[in-house]
Amino acid sequence: MTGGRLSLNQRTIANASLAEAIDACRAAGLTSIGVWREPVAEVGLERAAELIKDSGLRVSSLCRGGFFTAAEPGAVERAHLDNRAAIEEAARLGAATLCLVPGGLPAGDRDLAAARARVVEAIERLVPYASEQGVVLGIEPMNPIYAADRGVISTLGQALDIAERFDPAVVGVIVDTFHLWWEPGVEAQIARAADRIVSYQISDWITPLPPDTLLARGMMGDGHIDFASFTRAVAAAGYTGDVEVEIFNADLWAQPYGTVVQTLSERFEQLVRPHL
Amino acid sequence: MTGGRLSLNQRTIANASLAEAIDACRAAGLTSIGVWREPVAEVGLERAAELIKDSGLRVSSLCRGGFFTAAEPGAVERAHLDNRAAIEEAARLGAATLCLVPGGLPAGDRDLAAARARVVEAIERLVPYASEQGVVLGIEPMNPIYAADRGVISTLGQALDIAERFDPAVVGVIVDTFHLWWEPGVEAQIARAADRIVSYQISDWITPLPPDTLLARGMMGDGHIDFASFTRAVAAAGYTGDVEVEIFNADLWAQPYGTVVQTLSERFEQLVRPHL
Repeated sequence: MTGGRLSLNQRTIANASLAEAIDACRAAGLTSIGVWREPVAEVGLERAAELIKDSGLRVSSLCRGGFFTAAEPGAVERAHLDNRAAIEEAARLGAATLCLVPGGLPAGDRDLAAARARVVEAIERLVPYASEQGVVLGIEPMNPIYAADRGVISTLGQALDIAERFDPAVVGVIVDTFHLWWEPGVEAQIARAADRIVSYQISDWITPLPPDTLLARGMMGDGHIDFASFTRAVAAAGYTGDVEVEIFNADLWAQPYGTVVQTLSERFEQLVRPHL
Repeated sequence: MTGGRLSLNQRTIANASLAEAIDACRAAGLTSIGVWREPVAEVGLERAAELIKDSGLRVSSLCRGGFFTAAEPGAVERAHLDNRAAIEEAARLGAATLCLVPGGLPAGDRDLAAARARVVEAIERLVPYASEQGVVLGIEPMNPIYAADRGVISTLGQALDIAERFDPAVVGVIVDTFHLWWEPGVEAQIARAADRIVSYQISDWITPLPPDTLLARGMMGDGHIDFASFTRAVAAAGYTGDVEVEIFNADLWAQPYGTVVQTLSERFEQLVRPHL
């Protein structure tokens, strides 16, 4: 039984359709899945909701909203509307959280402080609608390797400074080992996060880093992260939700889905579950 | 006149010998150079000291000591002895500081907290000898991209927590834009650093990140860093020393030395000097 709290983020088997990802979860005995908006859109939201309902799987997260850093008013408005749509999708799918990727610096823009401030404004504007829809927003602090082009929120401490402005029933944080393993004092920040932790995502930091930094994540156990201590900190903070394996890695994407899910289930049992 | 406070870290023209790097500095009107131990060893310490003295250049830093994270007692001792040798070289060359690269996790070791603790112990052990030799140790916090394999000290805040245990005349910090530009609250940490800042090193964060992360730095102006605000923070903290351009980049290494120094001088004049 690898079920229980292990969830497959479907991006870990990026070439699979939603139906195939659901099948891979069920075949491996998983009871939860993290879904992405693109493969949901491929089949349509209603059909996706039906597939998931029929499967009996929980939806540990919907990836992803966010990309809040545009400065140009039209782009800001488009991002807002897209995030409202993402909130509706998260509500329809019953996702435990909507992952918010902060977004990077706009092209040619070097004002990091202003970009970070726009993230806060954009979240503030979304909160009432998320609350109305019963959706929990999950701010995802991202490894500084992505600070320029993907996520200007770089530490759990920084994400909590934002989240704590809002009702914990509506705004939380995503704790991801790849993004946060290096953060000085991260255990204290995890403890501070407490019931703000709305998703625990895992993958490893491997070296040498693969050439495409967006596909640089490794299978747990293949890299440098101490999953025992990190997981104990998350458990001690009171997190009882699913543990989502999210690995972007071209070598993994080339493997059969079943093999990938088998491997990650084994690594989860060995490295993570004993510490939950 | 590009002289004054601009310094060429010789690794920016990595294929040059010490004599060639000195010539490139003088040809461009620079008055300072950051030297590396390997090219110094190539000609011998005494000859290197002579070359530098004859050139009239200041030595803004000697790179590098550190690599303090070994756990095995023999390796710890070897690192200590090598750092004592580096201190002697820094003293002989009259370097403004000896750059300390913290070191990464030992092979197969995932205990980041313990590795960080060993850095503190190793520095503590070196301080009396550095003090005796009149050498200022510069702790270099490194971008988290290097946390696993090169530098377990990841933020200026963390470096200052270590440096502040010691006499500011002996232990300071290296403030490097590439390593620190993303750090939340970095301006406050730079202000806190004050006279602990023993070197200001500059290069840019470019995207997409070049495939070899060790050669991922860019020329100022080619990337995402706001040199104006960062430099103003360093100046406001009271730093009056040299500004060292340290760029590890294969494309740059392929260019003639004179071209590289010309370009970095222009970028310095344009992006950095007005804010010093």
